[in-house]
Amino acid sequence: PYSEDKSRLKMEEEEAEYDPEWEGGDYVCKYEYLDHTADVQLHSWGEDLKEAFEQCAVGMFGYMTEIETVEPLDTHEIEAEGDDMESLLYQFLDEWLFAFSAEPFFIARDVKIVEFDRENFKIKSVGYGETFDLSKHPQGTEVKAITYSAMQIHEEVETNDVYVVLDI
Amino acid sequence: PYSEDKSRLKMEEEEAEYDPEWEGGDYVCKYEYLDHTADVQLHSWGEDLKEAFEQCAVGMFGYMTEIETVEPLDTHEIEAEGDDMESLLYQFLDEWLFAFSAEPFFIARDVKIVEFDRENFKIKSVGYGETFDLSKHPQGTEVKAITYSAMQIHEEVETNDVYVVLDI
Repeated sequence: PYSEDKSRLKMEEEEAEYDPEWEGGDYVCKYEYLDHTADVQLHSWGEDLKEAFEQCAVGMFGYMTEIETVEPLDTHEIEAEGDDMESLLYQFLDEWLFAFSAEPFFIARDVKIVEFDRENFKIKSVGYGETFDLSKHPQGTEVKAITYSAMQIHEEVETNDVYVVLDI
Repeated sequence: PYSEDKSRLKMEEEEAEYDPEWEGGDYVCKYEYLDHTADVQLHSWGEDLKEAFEQCAVGMFGYMTEIETVEPLDTHEIEAEGDDMESLLYQFLDEWLFAFSAEPFFIARDVKIVEFDRENFKIKSVGYGETFDLSKHPQGTEVKAITYSAMQIHEEVETNDVYVVLDI
């Protein structure tokens, strides 16, 4: 629902077209900015893995705007299914990213997992938030995709840590 | 001389400290943003390789601010030396990056190579510009380093293309 980080986009729009006819002026511009790549690593934790997953989704939304501006005016539900814990985490975050990126353009202030089926790797989750609105929610950075890059899920430690890299 | 892209930095500062004592409030925050990586690919060209190198340096400066705001009020000279054309390009850009990142915090509107010794891989170059000043030059994106990643120098074609990836 919102355009890319303005400061970076502005730089990209500075692309110069090569015009072989043009000879005048002091400064000929023969360069252009091509692809850029960027990612950010998100670390979340909790009293159990469920909470670490929930916090990971909230952390993702926190990257998109100043999360304090989001009010829990509405709810939205998603379901996710994986083949193992890693793909479950991926699908869970991807479903939330999709809820944001398309109708209903939902952004959550809080995310709760109401069913966490660890045998079949299924999640049902409710988000408390509202429709994303640029006049209310400052533009953060667009999250383009969840990745499996360097993904870590540590349930053996008390803090139940989760690490996910997001493409931005 | 200037801080990082604000929009991204703001997000990073949103890091939440894990406070095991804190139980109150509706929203417990158990996530933090760790490393991010980002790069941009710059493509320049010219009537000869010398011009492609010059344009590459200007393109790098163009990523740091709106280059039209830089006036050629002063000059600065750098020298670079490499073992081959790739390392010469790297050193040439790195010297200009250093001139910007430390005293004299020089940003060039135009860069000329006055000596291009292709046998010994040495360059002498003059920049026309001024001291970087945030009140005059809008903040762009910090260039952290030149890289050899996917570097390409194509002298065999008429356009003399150079491709460089910059860490930002």
